[in-house]
Amino acid sequence: MNTFPKEKLEKTAAALLAKAGLRPEDALQAAEVIIQSDLSGVDSHGLSRLALYLGRIRQGMVNTAPKIGIISETESSLILDCDNGLGVATVPRALELALKKARGAGALACVMRNSNHYGVGNYYALKSISENMICLLCTSTTPSMAPTGGVELLIGSNPVTVGVPAGKARAVILDMASSNVAMGKLQAMLREKQKIPFGWAITQDGRPTDDPAEAVLGSLLPIAGYKGYGLAVIVDILSALLSGAAVGPEIGRLDGRGPLKPEEIGHFLLLINVEKFRPVAEFKAAVDSYVELLKTSKKAEGVPEIFLPGEIELKKMAQRSAEGIAVTEALGEQLSAQARELGLAGPEDDFAALVKKFAG
Amino acid sequence: MNTFPKEKLEKTAAALLAKAGLRPEDALQAAEVIIQSDLSGVDSHGLSRLALYLGRIRQGMVNTAPKIGIISETESSLILDCDNGLGVATVPRALELALKKARGAGALACVMRNSNHYGVGNYYALKSISENMICLLCTSTTPSMAPTGGVELLIGSNPVTVGVPAGKARAVILDMASSNVAMGKLQAMLREKQKIPFGWAITQDGRPTDDPAEAVLGSLLPIAGYKGYGLAVIVDILSALLSGAAVGPEIGRLDGRGPLKPEEIGHFLLLINVEKFRPVAEFKAAVDSYVELLKTSKKAEGVPEIFLPGEIELKKMAQRSAEGIAVTEALGEQLSAQARELGLAGPEDDFAALVKKFAG
Repeated sequence: MNTFPKEKLEKTAAALLAKAGLRPEDALQAAEVIIQSDLSGVDSHGLSRLALYLGRIRQGMVNTAPKIGIISETESSLILDCDNGLGVATVPRALELALKKARGAGALACVMRNSNHYGVGNYYALKSISENMICLLCTSTTPSMAPTGGVELLIGSNPVTVGVPAGKARAVILDMASSNVAMGKLQAMLREKQKIPFGWAITQDGRPTDDPAEAVLGSLLPIAGYKGYGLAVIVDILSALLSGAAVGPEIGRLDGRGPLKPEEIGHFLLLINVEKFRPVAEFKAAVDSYVELLKTSKKAEGVPEIFLPGEIELKKMAQRSAEGIAVTEALGEQLSAQARELGLAGPEDDFAALVKKFAG
Repeated sequence: MNTFPKEKLEKTAAALLAKAGLRPEDALQAAEVIIQSDLSGVDSHGLSRLALYLGRIRQGMVNTAPKIGIISETESSLILDCDNGLGVATVPRALELALKKARGAGALACVMRNSNHYGVGNYYALKSISENMICLLCTSTTPSMAPTGGVELLIGSNPVTVGVPAGKARAVILDMASSNVAMGKLQAMLREKQKIPFGWAITQDGRPTDDPAEAVLGSLLPIAGYKGYGLAVIVDILSALLSGAAVGPEIGRLDGRGPLKPEEIGHFLLLINVEKFRPVAEFKAAVDSYVELLKTSKKAEGVPEIFLPGEIELKKMAQRSAEGIAVTEALGEQLSAQARELGLAGPEDDFAALVKKFAG
């Protein structure tokens, strides 16, 4: 397993994305979001998804020259059409538009439609936090859950990200899916011939199962039973119904279990301009005190440390910024194969050679 | 068990609250919120809490003549001081102020401080929905949970309510706590000498337990493990830190496990003015279609019906509006005792006599 500095991985990912068809500035933007995921330890949403993104571009499923359209706006609302751009390239631009508006407002609710998966949530949270905004972001996704009591895949894992600026503590970032685990996790355990815990998934006909082979044909289960189902429903309503995006079977699935078509998903973003509520320094000090209160409280036996939401990811960011990001053999080979298909690498080039070629 | 029409229970509750010291109009408002809870089947937050509210008033812990103060505002932000009013009487007024502002805006974020428990969340959701607003409301509460890995009660069960207007479906309302169950549930099972399921609570030193006697001295557990803990943290930040309310040990506890003092809790309210996003009829039709999609989807074996969040409560409202609200012997006797203490009933008066006296 080789380790690479973040900047080099960004340049390498950008080179592949640009060669696949993205505009150079979009490729760089997308690469920044992708590598942020690996940097913060969210390995499921980073380089491991690059092949998927390259595939969507090469299949013509995303618009490689999108222009974000403002459908309508008021001082505190914004409706954007993301023009079917690759989410990791386009949604950061949409966030910039929203942040600009939010600076003049107390709060801004923004919905986006005609969009695609935007990658790791903490990227957007950290951008918002750097402008002293609290951010609540959520998105509809490829349906992978049935409603409680049902068996049809109608609802996505619908993640929610909430980011809060802090002082010394830097940030509190909650980033969670509405499902217990991602479908990818079930597939990995199937490959490794492991049983899955009951509670992660049900079979096609709605029975509990610990067999990943049955589970990948069935439905993920939401967190906390019907509460997580309810959360996923609310995410669908805010992200897709308020924006006029696709829902359920209309969504262009990313998992190959449906017709090949654009995702057409929607996102919801709330920005709260902290300074309109409390002096920013005072608010950050209050968050720091709260963090301190929890972290220094009495621990259960055997627990070395109490963590705040997002703290582990921020620690990983610091560590991997200093030490680099490890890329497994299997992932490196997958990306090298993509590079070869794009005519960017010869048969002898491994991932390290690829990185050297594009990032020196 | 006797059954009473909603209006009669409202008048009876209002009579007790007014006698305890609330202004007549506040007593009526509080009674409306309280009885809405019983009406919609949320028995834990309705008449069963009236004795607690009467106690707080009689102990001088709430201001019986509060004046809501506007600390600051912009077009899309509002900071309110609830002047230590009883939550069920004062927060509906605060909501009215917020709704009035939100009519002119796309979105409004409102925080409230110096407040007390506001009762059942669906009251506020339904009020917002009737004005075609999506509402997200949450509140800090008496600490009953430790942070994940800890044992000190620093975080409340911190409930979240999201209400969405619909057409034929009327509304989708998610109303959930960040904890798996309420402390009251543990106390009830202790009285009934029942074991509790593992996963509901931990002991004072952080061990899993199925013994309610240990559990009531320990900490509730959040929904979905660290995800629910994260959710409760975000609710604290939005409700208490953004508003400048009390947190953790500063909160005036309602459970008698701390010094007698005002709660000083905070709330967060987001109103989204649907018409600034999509034509209201179009949005409601989209919600109806989505509800239909889920409800008519294939059910797992043995499941008679798929429900949307809040649907069961709306059904109970319709049923209990028609058939009345049942009041148990024990609850009736508790309320009669309160009435006797307030000099509103003689020793011979049972709850039915009390209702007859105040509501004919």
